Amino acid sequence: MEIMSNPHADRVRATARLISSAGRRKAGSFLVEGPQAVREAVRAHAAGRAQVQELFITAERAEREPELMGGPDLHRHLVTEEVLAALTDTVSPQGVVARCALPQTSLADVVLPGAGLIAVLARVQDPGNAGTILRAADAAGATGVIALSGTVDLFSPKVVRSTVGSLFHLPAVTGVSLTELGSALSGVGITALAADGYGDTDLDVLQDDAAARRVGVTAKGAAQRVALSAPTAWLFGNEGSGLSDEELAACRARVAIPLYGAAESLNVGTAATLCLYASARAQRGQG
Amino acid sequence: MEIMSNPHADRVRATARLISSAGRRKAGSFLVEGPQAVREAVRAHAAGRAQVQELFITAERAEREPELMGGPDLHRHLVTEEVLAALTDTVSPQGVVARCALPQTSLADVVLPGAGLIAVLARVQDPGNAGTILRAADAAGATGVIALSGTVDLFSPKVVRSTVGSLFHLPAVTGVSLTELGSALSGVGITALAADGYGDTDLDVLQDDAAARRVGVTAKGAAQRVALSAPTAWLFGNEGSGLSDEELAACRARVAIPLYGAAESLNVGTAATLCLYASARAQRGQG
Repeated sequence: MEIMSNPHADRVRATARLISSAGRRKAGSFLVEGPQAVREAVRAHAAGRAQVQELFITAERAEREPELMGGPDLHRHLVTEEVLAALTDTVSPQGVVARCALPQTSLADVVLPGAGLIAVLARVQDPGNAGTILRAADAAGATGVIALSGTVDLFSPKVVRSTVGSLFHLPAVTGVSLTELGSALSGVGITALAADGYGDTDLDVLQDDAAARRVGVTAKGAAQRVALSAPTAWLFGNEGSGLSDEELAACRARVAIPLYGAAESLNVGTAATLCLYASARAQRGQG
Repeated sequence: MEIMSNPHADRVRATARLISSAGRRKAGSFLVEGPQAVREAVRAHAAGRAQVQELFITAERAEREPELMGGPDLHRHLVTEEVLAALTDTVSPQGVVARCALPQTSLADVVLPGAGLIAVLARVQDPGNAGTILRAADAAGATGVIALSGTVDLFSPKVVRSTVGSLFHLPAVTGVSLTELGSALSGVGITALAADGYGDTDLDVLQDDAAARRVGVTAKGAAQRVALSAPTAWLFGNEGSGLSDEELAACRARVAIPLYGAAESLNVGTAATLCLYASARAQRGQG
């Protein structure tokens, strides 16, 4: 295989354009960096859940990753470190970058009848937080992830990196309006819950309700509260401003995580993990 | 008040040395940046829980922060943006930096008889992860935080920033050896638990045990398992290599968080949040 060594070659420059959001939209592709994430992409490709269009890899990395060099029929390019550096905005891309087709996921692919758990990013801005929420949704066994308009682009290199492959494990749909979300959820009977530090419903009380139900007891007042075991879409808001009034109004309840110490708040990624796992536990406890 | 405008002045250069770990050790001080964290530092100072030695603030920020300019008697300096920039490694220090005395916390201040919940960082390297764990420990109402030797310096500007003030809410002791930790914990009867993705004890099973106990039932096999309601020190390991064999051996049980989806692992900050909150819930349920 020939080694691509010219970082100014047309193919390299065209691929590098995918670092920007406009470039991704125009080309319908996005970039995946680093061996772990690229391995997940290639596995998803082999399983028909993703489409890896091209793979750029250094000779050194190729030698250490037989899984990336064997396996499915892929358009592979051996490249120099210099070419690889031109394809990413990372300090250390670790020798491999893949170009993947942006998935054609629609809202109906996520808001399915029978979906148990959905994570909704309501204008989350930080790529690391978005990645943490995607990874937590994956770990908690969520059906999928929805990003409302105004959320950081889930297919930007920074978010893709921080999801550590989870983007290939569950469907993610972006650019959804609050109105579209509301009607989709009510169409299939999924309850929207707001993760809201100022909420009047305590997540621990809902967890106690679920634990009591599991042993056949109805906790006092539980009938008036939402049940974590019901199909649920959790809304997680913007880092600075939280959920908007419209977003809160679209939710059945505003749920706060109790703060036992002196901390004033939790990071949105951390809060999302606790909410998603609380639902996962309650839903599985029913089975 | 005179405005300090020379970024090369002795006082500025001496303070800037606190950006490095060696500089902090030598001076016995550390830096706190940004209005939110500095407000927490000043509050802790007023309450006698911290010592703010100097405060550097721009005129613009001073006008917007009456709480930082009034309140306790402090050594304040009005500075130019240029001087402020020389005092930090941040792109946007947001107009204020404080120099605080490194706390003289000893292991005995954290491992108290009666301590319910302790977070132990066992060679965690990423400043953001360390900050997340400190913040989660604070939110979960932990008694304190212990950093084993080889952990990122909790008083580095990056960690201080990412704790968003939690460093002033609970005692943190650094540079502890595993042997010291082990004997301190056993001396006061605190159980060490390992957060370990490969662990043979399921966190959800322990949570079910606790929920059952709360309603007066003993879950099957619970007597053979550790109880989350007991006084607990959680050990959280290195991002790449996890907990070492010695660290695992010092723990009573190896506890894994169940992964319901396809995610291979959770970030250590996320895992720590779930473990600490699970203990907090179980311990409070006893009350």
